[in-house]
Amino acid sequence: MPKAKNVLYAQAGGVTAVINASAAAVIETVQKHPETFGKTYAAINGIKGVLEEELVDLSEIDLATLEKLKYQPGAAFKACRFDLDPLEHNPQQYQRVLEVFKHYDIGYFFYNGGNGSMVTAQKVSDYCCEQGHEVICIGVAKTIDNDLALSHCSPGYGSAAKYLATSFIEATIDILSMHDTSTKFFVMEAMGRNVGWLTLAAGLVKEVIPDAPLLLLPAERPFRREAFLKRLEQLVDEKGYCVCMVSEGLQDENGNYVNITAVEHTIEQDYTQLGGVGQVIAKIAADQLDCKTHCAIPDYLQRSASHCVSLTDWEIAYGAGEAAVLAALEGEHGTLPVVVKTSDTPFNWTFESVTLQDVANLELRVPDEFISEDGMDISEAGLNYLLPLIQGEHRPDYRNGLPEVSPIDFMPVKPCLSAFKAVK
Amino acid sequence: MPKAKNVLYAQAGGVTAVINASAAAVIETVQKHPETFGKTYAAINGIKGVLEEELVDLSEIDLATLEKLKYQPGAAFKACRFDLDPLEHNPQQYQRVLEVFKHYDIGYFFYNGGNGSMVTAQKVSDYCCEQGHEVICIGVAKTIDNDLALSHCSPGYGSAAKYLATSFIEATIDILSMHDTSTKFFVMEAMGRNVGWLTLAAGLVKEVIPDAPLLLLPAERPFRREAFLKRLEQLVDEKGYCVCMVSEGLQDENGNYVNITAVEHTIEQDYTQLGGVGQVIAKIAADQLDCKTHCAIPDYLQRSASHCVSLTDWEIAYGAGEAAVLAALEGEHGTLPVVVKTSDTPFNWTFESVTLQDVANLELRVPDEFISEDGMDISEAGLNYLLPLIQGEHRPDYRNGLPEVSPIDFMPVKPCLSAFKAVK
Repeated sequence: MPKAKNVLYAQAGGVTAVINASAAAVIETVQKHPETFGKTYAAINGIKGVLEEELVDLSEIDLATLEKLKYQPGAAFKACRFDLDPLEHNPQQYQRVLEVFKHYDIGYFFYNGGNGSMVTAQKVSDYCCEQGHEVICIGVAKTIDNDLALSHCSPGYGSAAKYLATSFIEATIDILSMHDTSTKFFVMEAMGRNVGWLTLAAGLVKEVIPDAPLLLLPAERPFRREAFLKRLEQLVDEKGYCVCMVSEGLQDENGNYVNITAVEHTIEQDYTQLGGVGQVIAKIAADQLDCKTHCAIPDYLQRSASHCVSLTDWEIAYGAGEAAVLAALEGEHGTLPVVVKTSDTPFNWTFESVTLQDVANLELRVPDEFISEDGMDISEAGLNYLLPLIQGEHRPDYRNGLPEVSPIDFMPVKPCLSAFKAVK
Repeated sequence: MPKAKNVLYAQAGGVTAVINASAAAVIETVQKHPETFGKTYAAINGIKGVLEEELVDLSEIDLATLEKLKYQPGAAFKACRFDLDPLEHNPQQYQRVLEVFKHYDIGYFFYNGGNGSMVTAQKVSDYCCEQGHEVICIGVAKTIDNDLALSHCSPGYGSAAKYLATSFIEATIDILSMHDTSTKFFVMEAMGRNVGWLTLAAGLVKEVIPDAPLLLLPAERPFRREAFLKRLEQLVDEKGYCVCMVSEGLQDENGNYVNITAVEHTIEQDYTQLGGVGQVIAKIAADQLDCKTHCAIPDYLQRSASHCVSLTDWEIAYGAGEAAVLAALEGEHGTLPVVVKTSDTPFNWTFESVTLQDVANLELRVPDEFISEDGMDISEAGLNYLLPLIQGEHRPDYRNGLPEVSPIDFMPVKPCLSAFKAVK
């Protein structure tokens, strides 16, 4: 029987409200298979923590900490927006990862990140294998944006959608009660870059207020000012007000973002930071209606609202971590377990593996059939897709009136290799 | 024994997450005293609904509706931003109110609004009395801004503070986990116009993350750019990131708002709509630190988040409605029951009446002792003030994954007087 190999888990990219459920699942599932897995480590700050030998040891994690981890917002092991350079540009980085993996006898690498980071993780594992140190690499999916291709949905999306829908519904009740002499147009801005999945979540307002005068501006449709104003005026004429959700990445008919916050120049590419389009839309509406308008931008609140998670999404996120470990046990490498729906009523799902390479450059946009023909509303099919993903609540622990989400301290590993600075 | 007189309840001004608890309290307390009170009506859209004879009859309200009302967000009877003109400018309005009050035999008028609206309510009641129709007028306090003078706190503030603190804490955990390679400065914008009470709520992050690198910019202190940047850089040097809450009404050293959204011109005055200062602050920080920053603007979400109410605040709001009815029973007129703290441990309070005239033109700003000497942090005294107000949670009813806050239909009263259009 071959000696058990150690496990490394790490997080990368934008967090979700349930990313740590996946972490807990990896830890718990690994613990169930001592014949295969040895110690469990996590890197702090993703692959950057591997380079810099900043690790924590999770082998002796106590039950209370594990339970707290399951509903902790943020990335409990810190998530990096840092990727390795291409091998040919910076072989030192790969050699360093190999050095760390060898030293800690890492045989399994579970990377909970975006598509790009997971492909890098696979490359570095491949490199290690080529150098004679076998490392199995499996991805753990997560993104609030829901743009992961080949998957029914992305772990993290359901909770962000539930938070946005809850907030949007409450705000709609507010506007409904005050529009007669105050704000007649309210707009909220959703994240999601070039996909409108989170914008779609506002459509759930119809489940509570069936005739809500709703106007959606998903990123999948160009912003047509005249059509928007026409629909807006029609809704305000009919109902006295209008509530709107807009994608941060809304583009005009020429394919330019309606609004951007900043552009960050990096060596590889320019990174466009989105945000603020809600205020542009509010101003356009105010000018047209000559009335008071308001705009909410929940920003990070939508990806960190652990007080408002969807229990179904939590189970999916937990399942993603568990499935990754099971895939490793099956001898897979370079794969990602994705969500496959197995039944509609009751909603049920399983995980099936796809290769990381296959999903890396795909982006799942909202399909046409989920958006109304005029591009400004959700369809019945869209609602049917969304509803199962936001079911179930988890009441957070409160202490002294506040959610008990104090940062968790894990057992740091004392570095013993030579120092290595990860720089860009 | 004199014949029982009917009751009119109405709502005005910006809503709170618990304003309908006050409404329910008025209804329930009135029901307990049939010897004094006859039917209970509510005006739709505040005093505007009185003018236009748009009323609902709450006398036969069923228990289930009353229970739902208690935790319903928004203003269940619609709240107006509409005030009567001065008597000398528009006596027709006053005559009309008298006509409606006479027709419906209104002897008690409970107005749940801002200071200004409540003074108008008193004036109109005074007018009715002068014309031989006696109407007792009592105010019911509410405002998320917490700027009601002579009161320990305002009903509605505790819930908005709890919502903002919860959101800010979750976002802080998010930034804490990602700042190493991503956003180093996060700012959230709080409502409150010229007072920083809601901004102060971010200070509660210290209860969960004692060493959180917090920077507050309350409206009570002018924005000093150099001091802000110095403190910001110091916090980022020390902790790697900084989280900030700013008042929408932040002013510069010359007393000008740092940012405004729009200016609305009315006959009486120009109304400045605030909002957007968070993005200005984020930009200043981004330029200084040359890093990614983010800004959240919860806007109306902070006053309508019934999924995150403070149970203590709810009890205070319920108590405000109850105290108003009891004050009427005591024969008061033109008064407002305000919150008086009776003990610190356990936190307890009672209601005492002040005259509406006395509080009308006062504004309660955050006292110096609640703000640190440098003006950018909360003091221990500030935390001690805040904590009791956010205690306790109420879990909303969920149906199909969403809060069950569908609008409530009340029994409309069929108008029988001549039509009257309330216009400005």
